[in-house]
Amino acid sequence: MRLHRLIRILYPPRSISFCSSASPPAGKEVKGSTRLLEIGDVLRECRRFSASDVAKYSEVTGDRNPVHLDADFSRRVAGFEGGRIVHGMLVASLFPSLIASHFPGAIYVAQNLKFKQPVYVGEEVVAEVQAIYTKGNKNRFIAKFTTKCFTNQDCLVIDGEATTILPTLVLNK
Amino acid sequence: MRLHRLIRILYPPRSISFCSSASPPAGKEVKGSTRLLEIGDVLRECRRFSASDVAKYSEVTGDRNPVHLDADFSRRVAGFEGGRIVHGMLVASLFPSLIASHFPGAIYVAQNLKFKQPVYVGEEVVAEVQAIYTKGNKNRFIAKFTTKCFTNQDCLVIDGEATTILPTLVLNK
Repeated sequence: MRLHRLIRILYPPRSISFCSSASPPAGKEVKGSTRLLEIGDVLRECRRFSASDVAKYSEVTGDRNPVHLDADFSRRVAGFEGGRIVHGMLVASLFPSLIASHFPGAIYVAQNLKFKQPVYVGEEVVAEVQAIYTKGNKNRFIAKFTTKCFTNQDCLVIDGEATTILPTLVLNK
Repeated sequence: MRLHRLIRILYPPRSISFCSSASPPAGKEVKGSTRLLEIGDVLRECRRFSASDVAKYSEVTGDRNPVHLDADFSRRVAGFEGGRIVHGMLVASLFPSLIASHFPGAIYVAQNLKFKQPVYVGEEVVAEVQAIYTKGNKNRFIAKFTTKCFTNQDCLVIDGEATTILPTLVLNK
């Protein structure tokens, strides 16, 4: 935790977001329009998982837990007042998706996840990954990211950390 | 690690598997046909993710990393000789799916994952969760599981641990 705080102080986050309200990338540009990932960089993406998304995910994964498919069950048995919740692992899929969209060929090595609050079907969620470590040479880079999801702007619903191997540090977007 | 070893010695695993080659449940039966989850219990499921599964998952999550969709790219850029690999988070979705199929209403609290080897499209994978901790009362139970996936019977491809809240310890299957 101390290391993370120190990194935040030394490298205040530069946001690269795909939310409609986002500011454009503010980081240092290198090689014309390309740009290298640096510690402190933040990548963001907004998403709203529909009932159809949840149904498709249930079908492909086989996870038919009724908390995702039956609003009454979700309220009555699990105590989720808002009804059906999105599979936590579906929400967490935003992290590798977000990383791979910037670094095609990224390989996932590890992911820790804490599911702190439910995400309801139809609710807007913002996934945010922040680079906290990079190391490597011209062929392969190990990159670590904090991985967080928020609802209602500042409600932390998923917290964690991912370790990846990237083929390059050049941001693809 | 020592605790896990001690638990294995004290409570040798009782397998409850859905693989075709599996033995029937061998644990202590309680209340007629129902049975309570005990430390050491193992739940298993086999699965083979097809190209269609991977395409559907890519669509619903938005994760179009070419290592999952383009065999040539996967070999050339990521070095996966077998071509297209299944999304790690899709393989890992077997854990909550497996737990929820036995405990409808299960809520995921945490999941740690280490992706040790690739799973190729069409390859058989066996997901295995083993109860290592339970605590609670008649309304809510915290249950922790080791979570592993294997290919080729004994090749560990994903390793980790999950923490869940279960509405009951009565096994649904």
